[in-house]
Amino acid sequence: MEPVALIVQKYGGTSVGDTERMKNVARRCLAAQRAGHDVVVVVSAMSGETNRLLKLVAQITDRPDEREQDVVVATGEQVSIGLVAMAIHAQGGKATSFLGHQVRIVTDSTFSKARIKSIDAQPIRSALAKGHIVVVAGFQGVDEEGSVTTLGRGGSDTTAVAVAAALQADACEIYTDVDGVYTTDPNMVPAARKLERIAYEEMLELASVGAKVLQIRSVEFAMKYKVPLWVKSSFSQDPGTLVCEEDKSMEDVLVRGVAYDRNEAKITVSGVPDVPGIAAKIFGPLDEKHIVVDLIVQNPSKDGRTDLTFTVGKSDFAKAQEVVRKAAAEIQALGIETDDNIAKVSIVGVGMRNHSGVAARMFTALSSEGINIQMISTSEIKVSCVVHSKYTELAVRALHTAFGLDQPLPPEGVVTVSETAALKGEKV
Amino acid sequence: MEPVALIVQKYGGTSVGDTERMKNVARRCLAAQRAGHDVVVVVSAMSGETNRLLKLVAQITDRPDEREQDVVVATGEQVSIGLVAMAIHAQGGKATSFLGHQVRIVTDSTFSKARIKSIDAQPIRSALAKGHIVVVAGFQGVDEEGSVTTLGRGGSDTTAVAVAAALQADACEIYTDVDGVYTTDPNMVPAARKLERIAYEEMLELASVGAKVLQIRSVEFAMKYKVPLWVKSSFSQDPGTLVCEEDKSMEDVLVRGVAYDRNEAKITVSGVPDVPGIAAKIFGPLDEKHIVVDLIVQNPSKDGRTDLTFTVGKSDFAKAQEVVRKAAAEIQALGIETDDNIAKVSIVGVGMRNHSGVAARMFTALSSEGINIQMISTSEIKVSCVVHSKYTELAVRALHTAFGLDQPLPPEGVVTVSETAALKGEKV
Repeated sequence: MEPVALIVQKYGGTSVGDTERMKNVARRCLAAQRAGHDVVVVVSAMSGETNRLLKLVAQITDRPDEREQDVVVATGEQVSIGLVAMAIHAQGGKATSFLGHQVRIVTDSTFSKARIKSIDAQPIRSALAKGHIVVVAGFQGVDEEGSVTTLGRGGSDTTAVAVAAALQADACEIYTDVDGVYTTDPNMVPAARKLERIAYEEMLELASVGAKVLQIRSVEFAMKYKVPLWVKSSFSQDPGTLVCEEDKSMEDVLVRGVAYDRNEAKITVSGVPDVPGIAAKIFGPLDEKHIVVDLIVQNPSKDGRTDLTFTVGKSDFAKAQEVVRKAAAEIQALGIETDDNIAKVSIVGVGMRNHSGVAARMFTALSSEGINIQMISTSEIKVSCVVHSKYTELAVRALHTAFGLDQPLPPEGVVTVSETAALKGEKV
Repeated sequence: MEPVALIVQKYGGTSVGDTERMKNVARRCLAAQRAGHDVVVVVSAMSGETNRLLKLVAQITDRPDEREQDVVVATGEQVSIGLVAMAIHAQGGKATSFLGHQVRIVTDSTFSKARIKSIDAQPIRSALAKGHIVVVAGFQGVDEEGSVTTLGRGGSDTTAVAVAAALQADACEIYTDVDGVYTTDPNMVPAARKLERIAYEEMLELASVGAKVLQIRSVEFAMKYKVPLWVKSSFSQDPGTLVCEEDKSMEDVLVRGVAYDRNEAKITVSGVPDVPGIAAKIFGPLDEKHIVVDLIVQNPSKDGRTDLTFTVGKSDFAKAQEVVRKAAAEIQALGIETDDNIAKVSIVGVGMRNHSGVAARMFTALSSEGINIQMISTSEIKVSCVVHSKYTELAVRALHTAFGLDQPLPPEGVVTVSETAALKGEKV
């Protein structure tokens, strides 16, 4: 028998996709309660519901008032919490639902992507003390003025982690349609394996380079408040993956996962006069238009001119070209080239901190498949390469194999001396 | 040019049935604002939406938790206010939406049929002062504990009148798919005419005997706070019908309208021992089961026994029979008979107060069509008769003709001396 704990469970849109699945969620909550736990459940809108609401909005106007759009889309989660609470009642349990404003999930006033500032855990604690399962609406909050706000796509994960942090919960379990975090996208690489554990920082890097299993903000939140975060399937009893603080044994694995992102596009400004302040004249105007620039590479200068290459999200591509063309003319650059047939493939792992040669091994793996690397970017625990998008699958599979991820992981706690030893002495 | 006024407009489900219609509502609100008025608009859920939500509830359980059901169904109006406010923005206006809890529409905790206790007009006044059109969610409130409540079917009318009362508005306009209150159901009687004015009390009686144009509670509310209430069509520019305080000229019309109700059923307990307290033994248990009894008739006693006949709503019919069968056995009545092929036809008018013979004229009109009267009930300004349901249309048309309602009304203020004189001296 597990010890009594306070558990926050979060169920996404697929897990509450219809009323039968909601009954399944109710069963799972009740099972956790019967096991002796206090249970708080955060739910998303039924899958398809937010899109249905946004379609109504689009029929009214293509430039919706942001405050009012949040009023509309926040209803998706409201329907879900009422139905899930009802389903718990119908199965003989006790449940109380709470909307964002009812537990004072206070956010800033950035409608459609508000940030949580505080949560009042008291109403939740009171309901738990009465033996109720508490059902909280994900994705929504309320600003200081009392207006409804939403947290942006995937915001329910953030709600769950924030509620877990506010309650100092023992665990936050994110239920989804996959049964954990994988070494890479299992739809692309059949050899992908589910991880037992992954460090917050690794998860954060993986999410930022294309892995979609958790929203970046929810991982940041969990890391900041040290909330143990489980990724599990709502359709199985699999223990899932634990996202947690890094410990010594995690460093024995060089690369935890391989991610890819085909949603970026590349812009090269060629023949840029190589004088101080010139980069600011390109990236300043992009920033003013709220265009996020990802990788940046500057070639060595030649004859007082250089080439600047960078990537932006595909959704900003058209706007970015317009801004950059104007800036390029102003600084008298020689021209611009664009390319949206690119993919960014990345390897992530805290083990990189203590081992050299990881980037080199990555470049070797790619080149031995004949894949040309267009751009490179590294961080302490990540290496990303931009390649032609046609190589995406090939690159991901090659890296997955090259870093030993096709093989089963050693059992937790067992240090694979041979593997780490074999890597010693390599250099990038 | 009309003087500047504070106007509350209410649009029902049909008027906001799709996004095109919402744009139409926005245009109407803006037109009223451009005419110099302060405009508050109360909207219902899009037609069909509440039923869609209740269907989801029914898929979860057939005995839903009432608190949670209100959480779910209140979303219908939330979607509407966001979309209507957005449509006003999109047409160049300014608008702010408010949910029940945001303007503190505080109700009791009778979920699914809560009663309004108070409204905080301040947020509405602030937004109006900034030149905004204020869009308030109908049908919903919040109880003292902060839980979402709903006011029952048609509750948006009540919201509109309550908001108008709280703001001391100059008028409350109820927009619907008919262009006013008619002398009777125009779908049944082509000769039905639209009324220019009707007294609160008449509207109340008509609503209570089957007319569906306004919810009874909203009329009570308007009467109590003397809110001038207009019934208008959202699809025309027709001035509609004014529901207002009774004045002298209204008494010149004997019967304002004819209503019918086919949603009742009749139960007769025969051979009831005619001893004191026996009625309580039948109606007490019905009351305990929250079954509302409408008409009650007791036949003259014969051999120490009497027959008791009464009507209940058809939805309570099965439950009522069960209760009454048990009670009848206990009091040793001889038996019970039931009949759900009945209709209640009623005539209503404040003119009845000062004129006798109205009931007699009603009975004559029915009997001359060969319609047998099964039960009779009268109030100061209403006479109702229960007849076989197959006679409904015939009875309504006969009464409509008999009381001169087929003819155009005299212009306001002109007393039709001949008609009133002709009725003098008649007795029931």
